[in-house]
Amino acid sequence: MPDTNLNNELVNNELANNSVGIVETKTARIEKPLKFECGKTLDAYDLAYETYGELNASASNAILICHALSGDQHAAGYHSMDDKHPGWWDVCIGPGKVFDTNHFFVVSLNNLGGCGGSTGPSSINPATGKHYARDFPDPTVNDWVHSQKELADILGIDCWAAVAGGSLGGMQALQWAINYPDKVRHAIVIAAAPKLSAQNIAFNEVAREAILSDPDYNDGNYYDKDVPRRGLMLARMLGHITYLSEEAMRKKFGRRLQNEDDSKSVPFTESQFQVQSYLQYQGKSFVNRFDANTYVLMTKVLDYFNPAAPFGDDLVAALKDTQARFLLASFSSDWRFPPERSREIVSALLEARKNVSYVEIDSQQGHDSFLVNVETYLNALRSYMSHIAESL
Amino acid sequence: MPDTNLNNELVNNELANNSVGIVETKTARIEKPLKFECGKTLDAYDLAYETYGELNASASNAILICHALSGDQHAAGYHSMDDKHPGWWDVCIGPGKVFDTNHFFVVSLNNLGGCGGSTGPSSINPATGKHYARDFPDPTVNDWVHSQKELADILGIDCWAAVAGGSLGGMQALQWAINYPDKVRHAIVIAAAPKLSAQNIAFNEVAREAILSDPDYNDGNYYDKDVPRRGLMLARMLGHITYLSEEAMRKKFGRRLQNEDDSKSVPFTESQFQVQSYLQYQGKSFVNRFDANTYVLMTKVLDYFNPAAPFGDDLVAALKDTQARFLLASFSSDWRFPPERSREIVSALLEARKNVSYVEIDSQQGHDSFLVNVETYLNALRSYMSHIAESL
Repeated sequence: MPDTNLNNELVNNELANNSVGIVETKTARIEKPLKFECGKTLDAYDLAYETYGELNASASNAILICHALSGDQHAAGYHSMDDKHPGWWDVCIGPGKVFDTNHFFVVSLNNLGGCGGSTGPSSINPATGKHYARDFPDPTVNDWVHSQKELADILGIDCWAAVAGGSLGGMQALQWAINYPDKVRHAIVIAAAPKLSAQNIAFNEVAREAILSDPDYNDGNYYDKDVPRRGLMLARMLGHITYLSEEAMRKKFGRRLQNEDDSKSVPFTESQFQVQSYLQYQGKSFVNRFDANTYVLMTKVLDYFNPAAPFGDDLVAALKDTQARFLLASFSSDWRFPPERSREIVSALLEARKNVSYVEIDSQQGHDSFLVNVETYLNALRSYMSHIAESL
Repeated sequence: MPDTNLNNELVNNELANNSVGIVETKTARIEKPLKFECGKTLDAYDLAYETYGELNASASNAILICHALSGDQHAAGYHSMDDKHPGWWDVCIGPGKVFDTNHFFVVSLNNLGGCGGSTGPSSINPATGKHYARDFPDPTVNDWVHSQKELADILGIDCWAAVAGGSLGGMQALQWAINYPDKVRHAIVIAAAPKLSAQNIAFNEVAREAILSDPDYNDGNYYDKDVPRRGLMLARMLGHITYLSEEAMRKKFGRRLQNEDDSKSVPFTESQFQVQSYLQYQGKSFVNRFDANTYVLMTKVLDYFNPAAPFGDDLVAALKDTQARFLLASFSSDWRFPPERSREIVSALLEARKNVSYVEIDSQQGHDSFLVNVETYLNALRSYMSHIAESL
């Protein structure tokens, strides 16, 4: 069944028939202490999550969706008919879509440390009555997977049909397969890397420095004051450059000036290149929906992700006991986590004699490809997922 | 003759025999008004410059060196025996080096708008008695070339044996060949591009935004107060990422932590990746030597550079009347201005039936390659320059 409305805008205020429709965020309260790898402990915490579709009687049709740096639990549908945009992975989740809610029970949560409703830096620390701010434990992907396992238990899901995500979300899918070999039948790892490169870390460092050096950051204690808008805006602008390919930027903006023709060569202060105003708009709108402490925390989770570390930096050894089947996908124009980074994981899986499918998608959208309507990508995912659906 | 001391450190407080030695900056006062492309005019201005070697009787052995974004007139040698580092292109300029001061008279200037001694935003505007700050005219490469022509006249140089530069410096060499066809015998254009890409502009935009949004920037009027250290530091950190290749960063830093082993996977606030502390150091030290208004101005010069613009964006047409011979050089790992950007210029020159040599250097140093000791690169330049020396 073709996706008829992949842009997912609410057209004429009507829901498309492949939309999950109006959804709501629920909150799971986990009363079991979680000791983080950094040594700190939360005695209890909230996980905000959404579900789409119905869990079957044998609880064998559940898919866990893991979000990336700036995502949250709202992966599909709308919170109200006034919403301008649907959840972040609406292109993939819904009746007849890749993660077909006619067959699957899709679970999407906000990770610990996030700002979508799960316990994070902006939450009140019951021990102090104040916002956690920088006292919030720095999580790792490992810590997240452990907390996600608690949510699975609450929902009555013993084994995921699939754990799926792009970028940092794909890293969680990989870690799930390593940590809970018998609780993941398929790990879908898209546009990810086995660990960050020095250049990846360097970009994150500049983003963090932008936030931490903003005078309004105030060592993280800004919740009752002005938030560090300038720093968070810069961090997002920089991030955006790394999400888009050179080619996508050229096609989208070229060297066109706002209200000017393309060939203008003289700088006027009142005009600017379209790419500048686009980045400024992206940065400004992000500030209104995202928490600066969460941004800093998320970039650190990325930097320190390295599932091979406990295995002497040997990824093959780290994957040795996995039982899941793997689907890896990468995009030709992704220069944040380019195809060769996915191939590192594929090679390690093959050397560990695991079942792995790999698809390298020719796409011009850069790292953002995993979030948008790239036909060959969606077809590859759809084909893979339909086999899982048939085996339910 | 091999270069014996290419790192150019003052060893045991002794000058190497291939160093130009102790040099001094001179200042040329140009009393002729310069009307900038932006419409503003300077009635008079200073150009700070240095010279190395001797001008011959026929004034046929002069080479103009043009600097890049953060460079200045101090291209070679030392200002005193206490200097830790020599000028920025010392690797190429000196007796027996590529630009051999035994044969050539090398002229290096600080461009208008700079902060090395030429008139710029930090200079006092005689009309107001205050610093120009943001009132300083936004220059273009065209404006610079016109001001450089004034310096040539003062020095008695009617025609340059060569105009040479890397990055933004190479763009000036290209513009010279277009603007003054009979005043440039050779244009040496290294690691450059015919115009910036949308991604190039986007990076510059984030750097500018970092400076402009720093509360200490104060709309450019910070000369008698705190300078916008945080913003300029961020801009430089970001710039550095684009100057180094992914490969160079991996080899230099990998994922190593300060004082920790490589495989550590848990974030501790007191430790950080080596690449982070390197970028922070680079950013902090830059703030002590560079003016924020100049940085903003220089990035705009880059963004608006497009010598083809007056020719309907047709680079072949722009190059049609050039008479110089061209040497183009690019570096395999340069992702700021990658080899294909140099090949665009080469193709246009060939189509315009011009004499062009092109060398693509296999190097791991990224965009910074043009500043460092890459043997094949220096050999290619040396070979080209020795033919010019023989024809003097």
